[in-house]
Amino acid sequence: MADEGKSVGRRPGGRTARVREAVIAATYDELAARGYAELTVERVAQRSGVHKTTLYRRWGGVDGLLADALAWSSVEPWDVPDTGTLDGDLRHLGAVLLDAFTHPETLRPSEAVIFAAGQSPRAAEALTAFYQARHEQAAVIVSRAVTRGELPEDTDVVEVIRTFSAPFFYRLVITREPLDARMAEVAVSTVLAAAAAGVFRR
Amino acid sequence: MADEGKSVGRRPGGRTARVREAVIAATYDELAARGYAELTVERVAQRSGVHKTTLYRRWGGVDGLLADALAWSSVEPWDVPDTGTLDGDLRHLGAVLLDAFTHPETLRPSEAVIFAAGQSPRAAEALTAFYQARHEQAAVIVSRAVTRGELPEDTDVVEVIRTFSAPFFYRLVITREPLDARMAEVAVSTVLAAAAAGVFRR
Repeated sequence: MADEGKSVGRRPGGRTARVREAVIAATYDELAARGYAELTVERVAQRSGVHKTTLYRRWGGVDGLLADALAWSSVEPWDVPDTGTLDGDLRHLGAVLLDAFTHPETLRPSEAVIFAAGQSPRAAEALTAFYQARHEQAAVIVSRAVTRGELPEDTDVVEVIRTFSAPFFYRLVITREPLDARMAEVAVSTVLAAAAAGVFRR
Repeated sequence: MADEGKSVGRRPGGRTARVREAVIAATYDELAARGYAELTVERVAQRSGVHKTTLYRRWGGVDGLLADALAWSSVEPWDVPDTGTLDGDLRHLGAVLLDAFTHPETLRPSEAVIFAAGQSPRAAEALTAFYQARHEQAAVIVSRAVTRGELPEDTDVVEVIRTFSAPFFYRLVITREPLDARMAEVAVSTVLAAAAAGVFRR
């Protein structure tokens, strides 16, 4: 912004934040376009328009860029469903996962950070923190089900989300089988049946 | 063997088979030691004692070595449990997975082929075929449960195995959280509850 230099305190959303956002966007775009194996500071510099010496100084290198991109994503708000039932919320969540994993622009960065974590301890740490944050955000749908009396008080709400998410990622990254509405349906029914049977009680 | 040159037909288990086994063992050893990113034909040649021109001629390159290693593993027999109940068999299977994923010598090659599949379409194809074979082998425990009348006739036996395996791999490769007896227990109970509720019926 034109008036930025005049402000006394640096606002959040000021130049530093804008540079960070541009760099993170460029990192994800590079991951989507070429994957982790070909991610370089030079390419992120070129795509973001931020000088590579700045990137090296602030992010250290490719690992740091990836870790910061994941940290940024982990606090990014997203629409956690609230349909009024756990069944409805899980269906919605399943549709979100299916959608993300069947579109290259969201699928490729997701895969890229998973593969990066296999090669970089720093990326691995960032990935664990990212999924921990996502699990906690998504677990709100389970906590609401507990409040409504759908599930017992002592339900391990995060374990419900883990169990629900696992088959999507299993097909995506491990067996590399197609994801479809039928498998999402099985995932929903599996978790509901297990929850009803008290499997997730602490 | 000393008498090999004398035999008219080439036996399975002859020189060709021994070379293949040495090469595959060396490939897995290299994956365990250094991972996929550093797998080279030269290193497999050195470790196996097979000349690299032979490796290039028969396997083409790193992708071919990896695909053949997976093809070899997919027909390798393993002890599918037979405890008399689905519960017992799943517990046994869970213990096998926990054991494999908590020992570096089996964990690292498993991870390596998963990451390789993210970078090589040929490795991806081989990985899918490998898990298809493994699912079918393991699904025998579910088919037996159907025969015993524990589960309905129209159970999708492979889907039971997929659902059971997913949380182990999810923690291993995606969230990179520790695997423990408690999570294996939840995986067993989840699948049994879902199966009892008819979730896996076609």
